[in-house]
This record gives sequence, structure tokens and C-alpha cells, in this order.
Amino acid sequence: MASYYSPSIEKLIESFEKLPSIGHKTAVRLAFYILNSSDEEANEFITNIKNAKTNLKFCSKCFNISDTDPCEICSDPKRDQTKICVVEDVKDVVAIEKIHEYKGLYHVLHGTISPMDGIGPEDIKIKELIARLQDGIVKEVILATNPKVEGEATAMYISKLIKPMGVKTTRLAHGIPVGGDLEYTDEFTLEKAFEGRTEL
Amino acid sequence: MASYYSPSIEKLIESFEKLPSIGHKTAVRLAFYILNSSDEEANEFITNIKNAKTNLKFCSKCFNISDTDPCEICSDPKRDQTKICVVEDVKDVVAIEKIHEYKGLYHVLHGTISPMDGIGPEDIKIKELIARLQDGIVKEVILATNPKVEGEATAMYISKLIKPMGVKTTRLAHGIPVGGDLEYTDEFTLEKAFEGRTEL
Repeated sequence: MASYYSPSIEKLIESFEKLPSIGHKTAVRLAFYILNSSDEEANEFITNIKNAKTNLKFCSKCFNISDTDPCEICSDPKRDQTKICVVEDVKDVVAIEKIHEYKGLYHVLHGTISPMDGIGPEDIKIKELIARLQDGIVKEVILATNPKVEGEATAMYISKLIKPMGVKTTRLAHGIPVGGDLEYTDEFTLEKAFEGRTEL
Repeated sequence: MASYYSPSIEKLIESFEKLPSIGHKTAVRLAFYILNSSDEEANEFITNIKNAKTNLKFCSKCFNISDTDPCEICSDPKRDQTKICVVEDVKDVVAIEKIHEYKGLYHVLHGTISPMDGIGPEDIKIKELIARLQDGIVKEVILATNPKVEGEATAMYISKLIKPMGVKTTRLAHGIPVGGDLEYTDEFTLEKAFEGRTEL
């Protein structure tokens, strides 16, 4: 395809186009925004990309992403050291932290068991989780993988490994979302909501 | 607001959030994409931002944005030196180049006269356009400002300045868009389409 912009702007447009969910028109708009921004702002952008790439590492305990190792959560003595919440992804940690309810530790699996995609138990951080349970401090493992086929299977797999160790395993409740509508709730969720009904 | 991500990733998210049309969720997705990309790809992104900010300048003749001065179009001897197409913005040059029809030169005004926004004729590149017409080589100025109030007013203003110099001024035709529908064409466009009707 012929290029209609000067090489330097064309290359910046291409860089933006490589990002997920950014189409050509948005890439052009973003490139021109950078072009028209102050040198200070552009340099800050560059510094932030550099720092993110160099400073961030995985916490060697929970595999959350962090500027420090161990991460802020693992090194916080006020967190409940007897609970570990197991999630698929770093973003799930943030989702749970936002509710300000859970005060235990985390363990990020970095994926789920998915034979269709060739991902087995050894490809995600399961043995690292088991290793964390050896000293007997942890009393409960909350399996907060996503309620999809792979997430459920991964939770089942981990649960079977952990139970013989005498550690309680729990799973997040299913049910109708708050503010949701019975009429539009799918039958599987509705079934789970009935099963999990609580006394008033 | 409390930050749930590590500082380095939080700052990269903030950088992306500053870009136009990028909301928080997209910014998080883009930041994690950069984080998971290869060092090579991240460095290429940084280089492209740097180069765009340092290499690009305005062409001193037509005020298009370019890696070279004069720009590729102004320094191309095959372009018709007797025609100048006047546009509001650098992106309009690309829009016209894409049709592969126009082979003359350009002049980018970098805005339109807009008294409401405090933008007068001296704030956009009008006197620079007049200067380009002094040597008598240019025979036609095509006023391709947008068909909005400000664009029309700017075209009228420039036309009045140029006419006494014996240079032909033209304006892009109005009409029904190709593939358009009479029923859904606004009355002003329809009126212009009638006025500009051509013999078959």
C-alpha cells in the first residue's frame, strides 16, 4: 500500500495500529496527538513505557506483576497470611482489590488448564501454589478462576490436589448479578442461584 | 483514587489514558499489551515516537508536515506547479492524495477563520499563500476547505484576496455523495446538487 504520510509519521501510525483494538483511523488520530503534544508530554510517555518494561517483574511468591519482589501485597504484614485467593490473571487481582473486602494473599496462575490449546497443569503456576501450602500456615484456598469451562476444570484440578493436604478449598458463589433481571438470567446461572439460595 | 496496580504499570496506563478516545479500560489493555510485547517491539514504539517528534517539521512552502523541507510534494518536479489546492489540515492532504486524481501542489492553512474562537485571518497561513502567488506561476487556486460555515467563510475571504491578482479560484463541487440516497440527502446539499447539475 502506498504511504501518503511522511515516513516518521507513517511509522508512528503503524506502531499505534499494532496495539489491540486500535484501527487505522484511531492510529492516525493518536499519532497526530503525540505530534502536537509538548516535548515534555511525549518524553513522559516514552519514560513510562521504558519503566514499565524494565521495572516490572513477577512476584516470586504470588506471580502478581509488581515493581518490587515480593510484591506490595505479599510483603504487607497486615494481610491475612492464612488465605490465598487463586486467580487466572493479574487483572483479576485488581478486580478483587477494588471491592476492599478480601484481605488475604493471592496466587496468579497465568492461565487455565486448556487441553484444546495445549496448555497442561505444568504450564501454569500450579506447582508453585502447592509449594506455598507446605508450611501449613495457609488454611483456605479460594479458587477464583473464571466460571467458564477451563476455569471450572482448573479449579477442580487444583481442589483435588489440595484436599489431601488438609487445606480448605472454596469457590466463589454463582448467582444472579446484583441489579440483574431474572427474566434475562441464563438457565445455568439461575440453576446455580437456586442451589446456592440462603435463608432470610 | 487509590491505585491498585504497581506504580510503573499505573503510570503507563495514565499515559495511554491521556490519548484522545482512550478510556480507562482500553488504557489498561494497551498497557498490558506493551508489557507483554517483546523488548524489540517496545523499543521500536519508543523510537517511532522519538523520530516523529524530532524529524517532522512543517514544509516552509506549503506547511504540510514532512520529514524533509521542502516536503516530498513541493520538491517533486512532476507535480503541476500551476495549481495550489488549499486545505485546512494536514490530514486533508492525505485524503486528496488517496484519490490519485489531483497532481498539483497544496497549501495547508492550519485552521479556518473563526471569529467565535478568536481566530482571525492572520492566525492561519493566508499571507504565506498570497506570497506563493507573487511570481505568477500559479494559475489556479482550488479552495478545498470544509463545506461548513468557517470553511466557506475562509474560502470566500481568500477568494476576494486572490481575484485581483488575476489567479483563478475554484471551490470543490457540492452534491449528493456517490451511492447516496436522494431521500436522505439534506435540503442544502440537494439545493447545491440542483444548482450544480451537469448536462448529459
